[in-house]
Amino acid sequence: MEEVLDIEKSFIIDGLQYVNWTPELLREAIRGGVNAIHVTIAYWENTQEALVNIETWSQRFLEWGELVVPVRVAADILAAQQAGKIGIILGFQNSSPIEDDLRKVEMMHERGVRIMQLSYNNQSLQATGCYEKSDSGITRYGREVIKEMNRVGMVIDMSHSAEESTVQAIEFSQRPIAITHANPSSFHEALRNKSDRVLRALSESGGMLGASLYPFHLHNGSDCSLEDFCNMIYETANLMGIDQIGIGSDLCLNWDYRTLEWMRSGKWAMTPDFGEGSASDRDWPKQPDWFSSNLDFRNVIVGLLQAGFNQTEVDKIMGENWLNFFEHAFRPQSDLDIASSAMSESCG
Amino acid sequence: MEEVLDIEKSFIIDGLQYVNWTPELLREAIRGGVNAIHVTIAYWENTQEALVNIETWSQRFLEWGELVVPVRVAADILAAQQAGKIGIILGFQNSSPIEDDLRKVEMMHERGVRIMQLSYNNQSLQATGCYEKSDSGITRYGREVIKEMNRVGMVIDMSHSAEESTVQAIEFSQRPIAITHANPSSFHEALRNKSDRVLRALSESGGMLGASLYPFHLHNGSDCSLEDFCNMIYETANLMGIDQIGIGSDLCLNWDYRTLEWMRSGKWAMTPDFGEGSASDRDWPKQPDWFSSNLDFRNVIVGLLQAGFNQTEVDKIMGENWLNFFEHAFRPQSDLDIASSAMSESCG
Repeated sequence: MEEVLDIEKSFIIDGLQYVNWTPELLREAIRGGVNAIHVTIAYWENTQEALVNIETWSQRFLEWGELVVPVRVAADILAAQQAGKIGIILGFQNSSPIEDDLRKVEMMHERGVRIMQLSYNNQSLQATGCYEKSDSGITRYGREVIKEMNRVGMVIDMSHSAEESTVQAIEFSQRPIAITHANPSSFHEALRNKSDRVLRALSESGGMLGASLYPFHLHNGSDCSLEDFCNMIYETANLMGIDQIGIGSDLCLNWDYRTLEWMRSGKWAMTPDFGEGSASDRDWPKQPDWFSSNLDFRNVIVGLLQAGFNQTEVDKIMGENWLNFFEHAFRPQSDLDIASSAMSESCG
Repeated sequence: MEEVLDIEKSFIIDGLQYVNWTPELLREAIRGGVNAIHVTIAYWENTQEALVNIETWSQRFLEWGELVVPVRVAADILAAQQAGKIGIILGFQNSSPIEDDLRKVEMMHERGVRIMQLSYNNQSLQATGCYEKSDSGITRYGREVIKEMNRVGMVIDMSHSAEESTVQAIEFSQRPIAITHANPSSFHEALRNKSDRVLRALSESGGMLGASLYPFHLHNGSDCSLEDFCNMIYETANLMGIDQIGIGSDLCLNWDYRTLEWMRSGKWAMTPDFGEGSASDRDWPKQPDWFSSNLDFRNVIVGLLQAGFNQTEVDKIMGENWLNFFEHAFRPQSDLDIASSAMSESCG
């Protein structure tokens, strides 16, 4: 198939990666046809620590300007594509960076952050995480944060949140939300994967699921076949609709074990929590052979075509759906209101 | 009765006050016979803000040294009594000062903090607050924090926490916990007051309840009679045992409305939350006539005697129970283990 697939003509947005970026890894992503990536810059970081991580990217946008551009609105992704660069969408995998201060939502949006999870595995001030025993749903502060994220144009991401919290976030949010990186529980039972109830509620509200390639989210883990993965996407598209699904590879590259320990245990435990791993198998999981770097999206494209999608559908899954979603999601509500009011005036 | 009551011979510990302290107010408390007070130095403060508040007290211990001494162990209260000063127990009404960093429990203990609530009205990282709709109990991080508070000798206070979280904290903690300021729901139905289920579990584990004199926790509010209040204590002593109850007056003095707004809304809401009040009645509630300052503990003593307690029992309620509780609770677990091991050796 590689002969017939011209990766340079593809349009690819990845709904989440966690990579210790170098210019080499960015060049690899460009060669792999990737146009935009939602990059993780916080797991447990507080405000000050998250701001430092944002500044790290500010510096990269200067130093590595021939490779990356910041994405503040969806059009920046198209501009990146034109320039042969990668659009970088800054995101938090937890709400720790806004601490208990509602006004920091706007501050982080102004600093370029476009996606934030309301909780990461554990209970947060806003929502329950998927590793907790009990789920109290969206908290009093959580409702305020959702309203504020809706107002400024920051995507609510519930990838690592518990089920009831996720359903309540979908219901309470006035704008569609995302689960940037997770798979259906029906494909692989895991605390991180999502029930059909959640996926239906998500799609009915216009939200997006990014299919994950992280081995702990896959049927047969690292040995998951490309065929099984693409068939899962096919079935999920049947459940959610072809416009509500994308890729959120959760590709993790170039980190040592200590980083994984930080992701899992943060500052909240003194003895390591092994998360999806175990004491005897604690390290980063091995990626499936057919998806081990940003060069491998071509395999996914081929697999999706073989699973029964046509080219138009594959284009949607690989990038166009995320682009359309971000086109609305990254804009302040006031912009959308003006657009909608202008629309109704011109219709009237 | 005032003729027969020599307040200078009483021993009084207040389980919680929130006062904008001045030397005059401290002198008033000394005249009122108060020997120690658990003072609130955080509601929503983060680590840095809480440390500033601790430094404020460090400065006061220097400047107002003839009036106050810090309480690090229970014996400091007796030393304060000898010196005619007030022992000050530093406490947080929320877990916000330790943020998401387990090691800050020890740091705050080293800085003198002896009591910390796991949540204040809202969901925290450790436990649900009493104003939330749903209660998920003690979180993963919460269990780590309880273990650490047990280890260093910091009292777990669940005054503003929700019921299931409170019961779980009692069960999970290896050491007795406290509800420093609240009343039974049977006396006055309020989100802040506690069910018989909670009070029974608390007393069975050796924990303490501090009876509150804050009007929102009282039958008939500001018009609550001294008789009703003292009869409530009598009934609660029947339920919990005479050794498990003290006073936690929740006396709030010398603050303006903005401070109350801070207590209620912190940084988590942009429009005011009126808490136990309402938009039309938002201000500080008026204290009952018979308890409006630290001079009025004599009224409570008289009331308790009239309610049917004997002098020994009144002494326990007014201060001795708190003293006995703090004698163990403020010491690191390792100290208690050594004492217990020495005891068993001398017995063997």
